[in-house]
Amino acid sequence: MSVNAQTLKGFRDFLPAEARKRSYVIQKIKAVFEQFGFEPLETPALEYEEILLGKYGAEGDKLMYKFVDNGERRVAMRYDQTVPLARVIAQYQGQIPMPFKRYQIQNVWRAENTQKGRYREFLQCDADIVGSNSPLADAEVIAVAARVMENLGFKNFKILVNDRAVFNDLLQKPGAQESDLPKIIRAIDKLKKIGREGVLNELGNDGFTTEQATYFLQTIENAQPTQKLEEIFSSLEKMGIDKNNYQFSPSLARGLDYYTGLIFEIEIPEYPTGSTAGGGRYDNLIGMFGGEKVPAVGFAVGFDRTIEAMEALNLFPEDLQTSKILVTIFSSELADKSLEISSQLRANNINTEVWLDPENKLEKQLKYADQRGIPFVAIIGPDEANNGTVTLKNLKEKTQETMSTNQLVERLNNS
Amino acid sequence: MSVNAQTLKGFRDFLPAEARKRSYVIQKIKAVFEQFGFEPLETPALEYEEILLGKYGAEGDKLMYKFVDNGERRVAMRYDQTVPLARVIAQYQGQIPMPFKRYQIQNVWRAENTQKGRYREFLQCDADIVGSNSPLADAEVIAVAARVMENLGFKNFKILVNDRAVFNDLLQKPGAQESDLPKIIRAIDKLKKIGREGVLNELGNDGFTTEQATYFLQTIENAQPTQKLEEIFSSLEKMGIDKNNYQFSPSLARGLDYYTGLIFEIEIPEYPTGSTAGGGRYDNLIGMFGGEKVPAVGFAVGFDRTIEAMEALNLFPEDLQTSKILVTIFSSELADKSLEISSQLRANNINTEVWLDPENKLEKQLKYADQRGIPFVAIIGPDEANNGTVTLKNLKEKTQETMSTNQLVERLNNS
Repeated sequence: MSVNAQTLKGFRDFLPAEARKRSYVIQKIKAVFEQFGFEPLETPALEYEEILLGKYGAEGDKLMYKFVDNGERRVAMRYDQTVPLARVIAQYQGQIPMPFKRYQIQNVWRAENTQKGRYREFLQCDADIVGSNSPLADAEVIAVAARVMENLGFKNFKILVNDRAVFNDLLQKPGAQESDLPKIIRAIDKLKKIGREGVLNELGNDGFTTEQATYFLQTIENAQPTQKLEEIFSSLEKMGIDKNNYQFSPSLARGLDYYTGLIFEIEIPEYPTGSTAGGGRYDNLIGMFGGEKVPAVGFAVGFDRTIEAMEALNLFPEDLQTSKILVTIFSSELADKSLEISSQLRANNINTEVWLDPENKLEKQLKYADQRGIPFVAIIGPDEANNGTVTLKNLKEKTQETMSTNQLVERLNNS
Repeated sequence: MSVNAQTLKGFRDFLPAEARKRSYVIQKIKAVFEQFGFEPLETPALEYEEILLGKYGAEGDKLMYKFVDNGERRVAMRYDQTVPLARVIAQYQGQIPMPFKRYQIQNVWRAENTQKGRYREFLQCDADIVGSNSPLADAEVIAVAARVMENLGFKNFKILVNDRAVFNDLLQKPGAQESDLPKIIRAIDKLKKIGREGVLNELGNDGFTTEQATYFLQTIENAQPTQKLEEIFSSLEKMGIDKNNYQFSPSLARGLDYYTGLIFEIEIPEYPTGSTAGGGRYDNLIGMFGGEKVPAVGFAVGFDRTIEAMEALNLFPEDLQTSKILVTIFSSELADKSLEISSQLRANNINTEVWLDPENKLEKQLKYADQRGIPFVAIIGPDEANNGTVTLKNLKEKTQETMSTNQLVERLNNS
C-alpha cells in the first residue's frame, strides 16, 4: 500500500526556518514571565473527558478531540490551559504556595473550521495569578503583557483596558435586564467597525427602543474608569509602564460569561488583523473542582498572531539560523584539520557545522551553506594546513581572508 | 455531578519544581544540538493513522493512541519522532537542503503498561543526520551525544559502540542463518548480566548445539572493531572526545531490525537503571514514504532517565527557582515604593517577584518566599522609604542589611 505523505487539515509541520522563529518567540515570552516570578507548569495532553466536558460550552464540547482509549476510558485532548489549571489547583491543594503565579506554554487541540484560517493544533502561552483578588495582581498581569510586547520588539502596541463593572450601569435603564447584557455589549463592541448609526441599528434590530439604544450607547461612550481601574492605572505607572501603551476602553467586551472584573486586549496599530494578547480577571472558574471560590487573573499571548505581526513589522533578528559557520572539508586527507578547528570553535561557544562527507566538492559545500543561510564558511586547504591558518569566507559580503585560528575565533565572536 | 480532580494513569503534571528541571535539561540539550548545527523541527501530535500504523510492529500498533476524528478520519497520536521525520522528508522533497541535521523535542504517547513504571506521555529528544552515509556523520552523532552528557554535568559516562556488521561473522558457522541472529544476539547481549554459563545455557535452550553456542560467544568476545568503527574512533579523537568516554562493545545489540550499521548506547556507572541515550545508523527507514533509500544516523536522549540520573548524581544547580528576590509590601501607603524598586530590579535583568496584596502581614510574605525557595527578600518600611534605602534579607544565611537601591542591584547580580 502506498501511503500519501501528508499532514491532517489544520495541523502543521514547522520546518527549521519556522521552528526557529517559534523558539525565539517562546524564549522571549518565557524570559518576561520569569522576570516577574511566574513559574512553569505542564499538564498532560490527555485528560479524563469529564474534566473538560461542559467547561467550554456546547461549541467547545463539539470541537473537542475526544475518544475512548484502550482501557475503555473516555479521554479528551487539552482544549485550553485554564481548566487543567483548575484541576491542578484542586488536586494539589496545600502543596502549592499561594498566590500561585504560573505560566504554561503548550499545544491545545480544537477541531476548528479550517476554512476560516484556523488551526486545529496551536500553541497557547498563558500567565495567570491564582489566589489573589488584589488590584495589584490585575496591574501586574497587564504589566507582564506590556513587557512581553516590548521584549518582542513591538513599540506602538495599545492595551485596551476595561472593567466588567462598567456594564452594570447599562442596567440602570428600566427595561434592560442582566440577560440583555451580552446582546447590548456585542453591538457596542462593534462601535469602531460600524459606527454609531450601525450600533443603534443593531440595537434596534435586537428589539430595543431608540431611546434605550441611545441610552446604552451614550452610557458606554461617557463611561469613566471604575475606582478599581483607577487603582490599576496608578499601579501601572509605578511599575514603569508607558502611559501611551494603555488606555481605558469602555466598549471592550471579551467573553462576558467568563470574566468577572478587569478585561484587556492588546492591539498593534500596524497589524489590524486582531489582538495579539488578551486577558482579565475570572474569579468563578478556578475553584470549579475544589468547591470553593478561587480568585484568578491572567492573560494569554496569541502565539500565531504574534508571529504574523512580528513578520509584518520585521521584528525577527536576521541571524536566527542555528549555525554561524560551516567548516568545509577540502579532501579526505585534510578532514581531520577541519574536525579539529570545528571542535575549537565550539569550545569557544560558536555554533559550528562541519561538512560530513570528504568526497564532496567544495562547490557543493558552499551551495549548502548558502541554502541554509549560514553566514560564514571556513576553508582549510593544503596551504592553510601547512601554515596553520584558515580562510574565512563571508557569504553575504562575498569577501574572504586568511587568518590564524585565534583570529578566526575573535572575528566570529565580534560579528 | 462532582468530578474527581485526577490525571490519567501514566500521565503526569509537572509542577514548577519539576518543570524547571525539565526546562533546564531541554535548554542544555538544545544548546549542544545547535552548537553542532542541528536545526529544530516540529511535527503535529496527530497524523493520519496510515502514516504511523505498521511502522512499529504489532506491539506498536497495539500501544498506539488512535481514534476516528469528527471528520471520520482515522488518526493516531505521535508514537515516535522518526516516522514523522520520514514523512517530512518525503513531503518536502527538494525544499530541505541535504544533509538535513534536525533535532526534535516533543512528547510522544504510548499506552504502555504503567505497572512497569512506564509513562504514557513522555518527551523524546532526537538528533538525526539525514542524507549522509559518511562515517563522519556517525562520529558526529556520537560526539553530540558525548557533549550533551558533558553539558549536563556527567563525567564518567561510557559510550558503548558497536557495528551491526560485527554480527555477520556469526553466520560463518554452518547451521546458523540470518534469521537466527536476533536469538543469538539477544542471548549474548545478556553476557554482563548472566555470565558466560548463562549465555551458553540460553543458546542451548534456543536449540543450538554446545559447539555452536561456544562459537557464537567466542566470536563476539574476540571480535575486533570493523574498519568503519576504526574510522569513527579516529574521527572522535580529532573531534576532541575523551577516549575514556567511549569503547568498542561487540555484544551491544539494540533493535536489530532497525539499525543497519553503527549502534551505540550511553551508560552512567553511578546510575545502573539503564542507558541515558542511544542511537545508531538506520539506512532503511527514512526513505519509506518516498520510494528511495535515504541514509540516516542519529540518537535520542532518554529524557526521564537522564533527569533521574542527574538527580541521583546531584547535577541540578541549586538556584533553579525562577525568582531571585521577593520584594515585600510593608503597607498600602508604601506599596508604590515596592513596585518601583521591583521594576528597577527587573530592568537590571534580575528576576523579581513583588508581593501583590498590601493587606497581608510581612510574616505571611516571608513564609511564601521560604516555601517557594526564593533566596532573597527586600523590605521597604517607613525608615527605608524616608532614606531611599532597602533592607535585604538573605533567607538561607538568615542575615540582613540595609543598603541603597544601586547597592541592592549590585549585590544581587554578584550572588
